[in-house]
Amino acid sequence: MMRIGIDLGGTNITAGLVDENKKIVMEKSVKTALPRSAESIALDMGHLCDELLKESNLTYDDIESVGAGVPGTVNMETGVVEYANNLGFDNVPFSSMLKQYIKCPVRMDNDANCAAWGEYKAGSYKQDSFILITLGTGIGGGIILDGKLLHGVNYAGGELGHMTINFNGRPCNCGRTGCFEVYGSASALIEQTRDAMAFDKVSEHAYERSALWEICGGNINKIEAKHVFDAVKLGDDLATQLLDEYTTYLSEGIANIINAFQPAVLCIGGGVSKAGNLLLDPIRKKTRKLIYSRNSAVNTEIRLAEFDNDAGIIGAALL
Amino acid sequence: MMRIGIDLGGTNITAGLVDENKKIVMEKSVKTALPRSAESIALDMGHLCDELLKESNLTYDDIESVGAGVPGTVNMETGVVEYANNLGFDNVPFSSMLKQYIKCPVRMDNDANCAAWGEYKAGSYKQDSFILITLGTGIGGGIILDGKLLHGVNYAGGELGHMTINFNGRPCNCGRTGCFEVYGSASALIEQTRDAMAFDKVSEHAYERSALWEICGGNINKIEAKHVFDAVKLGDDLATQLLDEYTTYLSEGIANIINAFQPAVLCIGGGVSKAGNLLLDPIRKKTRKLIYSRNSAVNTEIRLAEFDNDAGIIGAALL
Repeated sequence: MMRIGIDLGGTNITAGLVDENKKIVMEKSVKTALPRSAESIALDMGHLCDELLKESNLTYDDIESVGAGVPGTVNMETGVVEYANNLGFDNVPFSSMLKQYIKCPVRMDNDANCAAWGEYKAGSYKQDSFILITLGTGIGGGIILDGKLLHGVNYAGGELGHMTINFNGRPCNCGRTGCFEVYGSASALIEQTRDAMAFDKVSEHAYERSALWEICGGNINKIEAKHVFDAVKLGDDLATQLLDEYTTYLSEGIANIINAFQPAVLCIGGGVSKAGNLLLDPIRKKTRKLIYSRNSAVNTEIRLAEFDNDAGIIGAALL
Repeated sequence: MMRIGIDLGGTNITAGLVDENKKIVMEKSVKTALPRSAESIALDMGHLCDELLKESNLTYDDIESVGAGVPGTVNMETGVVEYANNLGFDNVPFSSMLKQYIKCPVRMDNDANCAAWGEYKAGSYKQDSFILITLGTGIGGGIILDGKLLHGVNYAGGELGHMTINFNGRPCNCGRTGCFEVYGSASALIEQTRDAMAFDKVSEHAYERSALWEICGGNINKIEAKHVFDAVKLGDDLATQLLDEYTTYLSEGIANIINAFQPAVLCIGGGVSKAGNLLLDPIRKKTRKLIYSRNSAVNTEIRLAEFDNDAGIIGAALL
């Protein structure tokens, strides 16, 4: 039977019809248009499902379940979104709201868990311990052990971005200092790049001729994570140094995760992961030197995610 | 049926006869006397079992299994100790060696895992997700999820002491910098105390009159972790400040563990845990402010271990 997966993001709500081969066969989306009430978001999610069904000539009788990935703490027993900062949800009985519009079983989990679940179930990994970290605005984490998502006692487990790697370091949104995501997210790479470029300008260092300036059209506020990798490919010194620092930070966080879990696979997803081997090779090399098990015959395989944002939709559908 | 658990430590080898109520009813030990061959250690372990059986008028027919906790990476499939730094074991087929002398099923696991397993099985926790950290020379970790020990893909999981919390920090034996155990172990507390006392002496600060000097008999090399707590009880300023710093470090590491796992219980064991509420109260307070789930209705219960070193023997017996 077909399933529907919905990714409820801060910018877009995207619903996908997922077939038995775990492939998205049709997708629909609308703007999240925050701030907005949970009720009206639930209504839109119902509409998206209706559209998918109509255009594919299906009814809810053809759908096994609808799953939703929500950026927050989702209590899977009660169907309540206990807290979702970006959505402004505070103890919202979201599952009940969705059930008004969706006429088949409704499931819900944290969005990072859905992404990990989708990668794990639809990817080619074939291992029963699997961790996905996604490098985006922050760092999300999803942990699968013995083939099951680790939720923790309060469904807030897997917050791997909020592990301090530098307790005297930079402040994090979460209230701590030196969290992994303050050093390893895509946003962190952008900030590190802007800082280095701005310092350049002031110091009139040779770096002022960094290719980054041309790539961003002379406007430092337009720097994207991708630009750093583009400049590295051109042999740019500043970008090469920035990438070296960034992969060092990432390796520190990844080594922490490996020393604790020793998963069969640790997978890196999110926009930055599109950089491919330029990102993966230094991380593999540096992490290997940091892990406690560096002399073990078997070690965690560090890989790039196979799916794009689709993983979240597929994972939600397969909950 | 009765079981035998053996704790193979760097100083002593201790074997305990464990009854069906998970209680140690008899204990025997010998010096480990390192450096020594694995063969001769296995022989001693066999002798300890023989002594326990003889003195309790039992034979191997009365014993369900013998378990051993080994300070290293233990491959439970092959019975090989892949690496045990302190013992000088490197790919030692230790299970086969033990089977020469022990005439019933032999089981083996990492010592920190045994300690966690013993606390979990014999303690009053009644939860199926449970983490024990032991504060001693280093920081050991044992992780139980869904009622099972987390071993990881290579049996090296749960090295919670080797998670960096300060990547620019002090060097760790493991080759990394800023590991949790460099700040949070009993040895770390001793080092922090000696450094502060030595600085005092040089600076002729008011702290020179710290009660710590009298407690250690004027010999800074005799400082023990316990002395810090003794001085705190006397209202000593320096010791109070040291304890405050130490519990801050511990809380940073514990918050990392909670954000990743969200276990029902996180238990603190090892010598330092004898300090009781003097240790526990500030850790609970500080950790609460650091965890991502601080607003959740349910949170990890941070507790002191119920068992002493016995946990390792009981856990080994119950493997």
